[in-house]
Amino acid sequence: DSKLKIFTCNSNPKLAHQIADYIGIPMGESHTTSFSDGEIQVKLSESVRGCHVYIVQSTCLPVNDNLMEMLVMIDALKRASAKTINVVIPYYGYARQDRKARSRDPITAKLVANLIEKAGATRVIAMDLHAMQIQGFFDIPVDHLLGVPILAQYFRSKQIENPVVVSPDHGGVVRARKLADFLNAPLAIIDKRRPEPNVSEVMNIIGNIEGKTAILIDDIIDTAGTIVLGANALMEGGVKEVYACCTHPVLSGPAMERLENAPLKEVIVTDTIPITHANPTSKLTVLSVAPLLGEAIIRVHEELSISKLFEIE
Amino acid sequence: DSKLKIFTCNSNPKLAHQIADYIGIPMGESHTTSFSDGEIQVKLSESVRGCHVYIVQSTCLPVNDNLMEMLVMIDALKRASAKTINVVIPYYGYARQDRKARSRDPITAKLVANLIEKAGATRVIAMDLHAMQIQGFFDIPVDHLLGVPILAQYFRSKQIENPVVVSPDHGGVVRARKLADFLNAPLAIIDKRRPEPNVSEVMNIIGNIEGKTAILIDDIIDTAGTIVLGANALMEGGVKEVYACCTHPVLSGPAMERLENAPLKEVIVTDTIPITHANPTSKLTVLSVAPLLGEAIIRVHEELSISKLFEIE
Ligand SMILES: Nc1ncnc2c1ncn2[C@@H]1O[C@H](COP(=O)(O)O)[C@@H](O)[C@H]1O
Ligand SMILES: Nc1ncnc2c1ncn2[C@@H]1O[C@H](COP(=O)(O)O)[C@@H](O)[C@H]1O
Repeated sequence: DSKLKIFTCNSNPKLAHQIADYIGIPMGESHTTSFSDGEIQVKLSESVRGCHVYIVQSTCLPVNDNLMEMLVMIDALKRASAKTINVVIPYYGYARQDRKARSRDPITAKLVANLIEKAGATRVIAMDLHAMQIQGFFDIPVDHLLGVPILAQYFRSKQIENPVVVSPDHGGVVRARKLADFLNAPLAIIDKRRPEPNVSEVMNIIGNIEGKTAILIDDIIDTAGTIVLGANALMEGGVKEVYACCTHPVLSGPAMERLENAPLKEVIVTDTIPITHANPTSKLTVLSVAPLLGEAIIRVHEELSISKLFEIE
Repeated sequence: DSKLKIFTCNSNPKLAHQIADYIGIPMGESHTTSFSDGEIQVKLSESVRGCHVYIVQSTCLPVNDNLMEMLVMIDALKRASAKTINVVIPYYGYARQDRKARSRDPITAKLVANLIEKAGATRVIAMDLHAMQIQGFFDIPVDHLLGVPILAQYFRSKQIENPVVVSPDHGGVVRARKLADFLNAPLAIIDKRRPEPNVSEVMNIIGNIEGKTAILIDDIIDTAGTIVLGANALMEGGVKEVYACCTHPVLSGPAMERLENAPLKEVIVTDTIPITHANPTSKLTVLSVAPLLGEAIIRVHEELSISKLFEIE
């Protein structure tokens, strides 16, 4: 029986430790630091020969450093004769550059997939990839986990009365549909439309929301522009109050201030990305994905199906 | 006849522009910026279909950002149907991680070579790679240029009397030998030796230096520790004065202060890495590699030998 080991770099060590605790094994000992000139140095302090190794690393800000840390660690593990190198990527950066939206665009999400594979990863475990197609950017197995069940469980425990789940755009309807199913709630969609060029967008809401409690759901909250515009439109449309939720709290630039000032009762996120803001808004609730990822690692290691992880009791 | 185009990212745009000027073509128009969350965005503002494209980018500090900019630009050029993608890397970061010095070390210089190739580069033009073996890390052609002729020309024009070229360690003797040949000067070597464990190193100088003007040469001056220790040993050994020179002025951490305070008459470097220090020492002289790289690009494009670039008149 081959040994399971968990390593982490610097993007999200707290989550990695919680995953190791969930599984009931100590963290693999390693040190990822920088030389004086900023080059990354990875030191593995224990043998990994013949082991099944799981690296937990999100490619959030500073995205290029976090990505390179992951790649260098994969290289070190490969040369140290690890049997399999499984990369657990709670947040997969560059996922929004997943197609040529304009001519001569790069497709950086595919580039990153190529880099991870070329470095020597043998499997990827990812969560809520911005586009499901990114799974196909890899030629190695990808286990794709969803944050929706975790968010659903939280909303169930809150026993929100008369809820309506709202997708902030047409791209997010499938995700919102899942949450609505879990909560046995109706669905609404914010339908943005630009009536003429150079005229600002009109927010039209498809579905019945009046007097209900809206739950806005997205995969990523980045600058929070989409969520805040959505919340305003919902309030104008006559909802009682608005909750917002997402899996990945990127929260860059003006995000924290915007969330604080928006008509939002609560903002529920997960810990795929650590909150590093000096002064986070008290509206934030952070749910942990450690049990989900821990369970996924155990099931992958034991060669069991992971589909039961998408259900909630 | 296929078109030659030059693009650059953000590591060393000044050098790129000087190279384009030398060749006599305008810079290719592109914009490499960041999204709010730190992810790199590359926009190519002109067609490259069927072109022979040269990207000028050093992977100096911030090394991971500069590397990723290069990779994303390669990806964009590849998808925009460039005919060949030639990466001009004046300074190749991570070159010192070129072997397993300790067990479980990564070999990041090889990882970087793999990433550049996987992204889609078809040729590399590099300068003074820390180890010549890095050429073999690539499966695409590598043109390797030397900074020694540029440094030699400068010292010749100074007409230094009674010079001795000094290698700061045994690893640099081949490079020092070349400079000595160019200058028709004798060679000396600083021979570091630790007589017992936990006793500090003894600097022993092999070769006759007394009363001469020493020219210390290295490929990289990083924290400047090696160069400063060498200069002190040479002064104690009775040289008249010490010049130091290198191709790549990494100059991280305490380097600038150390150079300022060391018994060094002048420090000659090239512009493979831009000097970004707020307060550079007046001892620094920066020579440009733009004519050398410009000439190399012209010769590669015209399918001529580049070996004549290693000679000086
Ligand atoms: N890091 C980023 N921040 C903001 N926008 C991005 C980022 N990466 C890609 N994009 C843009 O977001 C769009 C894709 O988002 P979506 O339409 O939601 O899939 C593309 O037009 C990209 O140019
Ligand atoms: N960026 C860096 N800064 C300082 N030392 C480094 C760096 N990269 C690698 N090294 C170390 O430098 C040594 C190689 O240098 P050398 O013996 O001169 O080839 C190795 O032991 C590396 O661990």
